[in-house]
Amino acid sequence: MVSAQSQVVNTYPLSSYTFGTKEPKMEKDTSVADRLARMKLNYMKEGMRTSVEGILLVQEHNHPHILLLQIGNTFCKLPGGRLKPGENEVEGLKRKLTSKLGANSAALVPDWQIGECVAIWWRPNFETIMYPYCPPHITKPKECKKLFLVHLSEREYFAVPKNLKLLAVPLFELYDNVQRYGPVISTIPQQLSRFQFKMITN
Amino acid sequence: MVSAQSQVVNTYPLSSYTFGTKEPKMEKDTSVADRLARMKLNYMKEGMRTSVEGILLVQEHNHPHILLLQIGNTFCKLPGGRLKPGENEVEGLKRKLTSKLGANSAALVPDWQIGECVAIWWRPNFETIMYPYCPPHITKPKECKKLFLVHLSEREYFAVPKNLKLLAVPLFELYDNVQRYGPVISTIPQQLSRFQFKMITN
Repeated sequence: MVSAQSQVVNTYPLSSYTFGTKEPKMEKDTSVADRLARMKLNYMKEGMRTSVEGILLVQEHNHPHILLLQIGNTFCKLPGGRLKPGENEVEGLKRKLTSKLGANSAALVPDWQIGECVAIWWRPNFETIMYPYCPPHITKPKECKKLFLVHLSEREYFAVPKNLKLLAVPLFELYDNVQRYGPVISTIPQQLSRFQFKMITN
Repeated sequence: MVSAQSQVVNTYPLSSYTFGTKEPKMEKDTSVADRLARMKLNYMKEGMRTSVEGILLVQEHNHPHILLLQIGNTFCKLPGGRLKPGENEVEGLKRKLTSKLGANSAALVPDWQIGECVAIWWRPNFETIMYPYCPPHITKPKECKKLFLVHLSEREYFAVPKNLKLLAVPLFELYDNVQRYGPVISTIPQQLSRFQFKMITN
């Protein structure tokens, strides 16, 4: 049996991190319809899509915050993306984090420490709705999305694509805010509640 | 670092379990106001209340279901309760599960296997609202509630107090159903999504 002790996650102040910019990373699709059409095409070629996303934590005022990439004025997403067919989840997430947030100089790219899987979401059909389980009677889900905790070191440099903004959003802002952040991101506070965040100050 | 492999939880059919009844276990309070008043009194004597609850899983039609105790016609709760001051969480949860669901004959009481902590909720004030984090600026929370996975064996006998009903509720019924089940129970599907349920049939 697993120990009932909750796991400790060291969380460093937002001010310990340095942020720069890099070339834009444009979204592949300009509409939801385009996105679902591309998903369908890829499914026919490669089967179920597996995507991986990282939860990067910092703290401000003694409260955990999550790093989100904002596209345009409203839409927020976790850094991550689609695995290549057969790609290892941890390696694929590291590749995606580097593509989204790593500097162009390899020496400055964080040594990503991929931690616990905290949630798995399923897309039963070529539609936007996802569920935190594979619904009964769905034998061929179209996407499986896994969220992992990423353990940051005390100092890191992040290079943010020029067309995106990187936001540190407090858990209390995400909680119960499905309208603004959607079902996946707005329930991250519940999925992280089992961890004990050790707030480290400089 | 923790392995990225998701943990496997064996889940047995509802039909493998046997259900009997036992003497009623009445609620200590007859209203929410009474409950909050008793909570306040206990807080003054003993400090922060710690409660523990168990998530007992079964399967039907290849989909995970959670055992909930229904009081009256609408209110549902997880089996569990308040720890005694200084009591160990795992031992306290076993005591509460036996009190709520164990037979009066010790030989028939399940050998409760308490597993992973899946969520922790905080009550900042003597009010009904709880959060999946301790809100900033709250230095003296009034309650901490921890939810644990309980790994059931293939066969068990449960004795249900006569004033309660034991329901097996599917994850798809709980999901996104805060109106019926409240914020704690309705987000259990998200907290369990990281596990791989191995559906065992007889």
